[in-house]
Amino acid sequence: MLKTDWNEVVGFHGHQCPGLATGYRVALIALREMEQRRAIDEELVAIVENDACGVDAIMYMTGCTLGKDNLIYRDYGKQVYTFVCRQNGKAIRIAVKPQRGSVAEDRQRRIEHILNMPEEEFCTIKEVHIDIPPKARIFNSVICAQCGETVSEARARIKDGKIVCIPCAGEYTRGSTTPV
Amino acid sequence: MLKTDWNEVVGFHGHQCPGLATGYRVALIALREMEQRRAIDEELVAIVENDACGVDAIMYMTGCTLGKDNLIYRDYGKQVYTFVCRQNGKAIRIAVKPQRGSVAEDRQRRIEHILNMPEEEFCTIKEVHIDIPPKARIFNSVICAQCGETVSEARARIKDGKIVCIPCAGEYTRGSTTPV
Repeated sequence: MLKTDWNEVVGFHGHQCPGLATGYRVALIALREMEQRRAIDEELVAIVENDACGVDAIMYMTGCTLGKDNLIYRDYGKQVYTFVCRQNGKAIRIAVKPQRGSVAEDRQRRIEHILNMPEEEFCTIKEVHIDIPPKARIFNSVICAQCGETVSEARARIKDGKIVCIPCAGEYTRGSTTPV
Repeated sequence: MLKTDWNEVVGFHGHQCPGLATGYRVALIALREMEQRRAIDEELVAIVENDACGVDAIMYMTGCTLGKDNLIYRDYGKQVYTFVCRQNGKAIRIAVKPQRGSVAEDRQRRIEHILNMPEEEFCTIKEVHIDIPPKARIFNSVICAQCGETVSEARARIKDGKIVCIPCAGEYTRGSTTPV
């Protein structure tokens, strides 16, 4: 483990915690197993099955980020991470094993334990075959006839014959309960 | 603009592009208007209405990240960013204005333009009133009776009377087309 990397990940996340340590360790294993460096563009893709703290370490260390669209989030609540290389199609699945020790246990000790326990206790790693996810697409923008703001063509709606954005259409998609 | 910050954001994203510059500028304005520093925990919340490159700059600069659950993504395809401070309830909405200049225009020149154009040309900023989103919750984990992997209680399902995870239940949630 490179102390520098870990400190940088903590800096990005904002604080250290066992969840972050888990994601950090997964990321190191992934880069080693995939024989990849941090993704500059979309060459590496991560499919994460939770959105807990560890995902910040995955993004920081592997370059699979929300904004580059090479981080795919599946809301399964599982400590499972799959990585795919677009170039050679290689894919690995890392499943973190149940961890012993109660939540009440000393936080710093849990972090140290996660970072240093033998790898076979930490997770299982297996090569898998999956379809390579499509690359991010870039869409033109249009102006919403109601609010005058720009909206991606791919998300534009029609209301009373005019092009509008989703909030102006009165439609609120997933995760949205409070109109802004 | 601090050159160091921009270079760090580019390092996190993996490359520089106009989208990243947009998010970077939004983040700087947000921190100034909210009189906040980068979020260590969940004290600042960002609601982003797209998942394009700029979101990486928002995460890096404001500390509102996917893994900390203080980044809320709404799939509206809009260059609109709302920030809320949990402590004082202050909320601002930054809407990026349509940008002149074709996509074909020199990439580096577009980045420079986004970073340096007058603020009133770049965006509108207004104070808004919104409900403060609930804080991230931490759930216990259970073991899936089928695959033996851990799953968050909040995502566990029941199949043939046993506790299973979503993939084992044969249910694939949003964004998932390829079972892993």
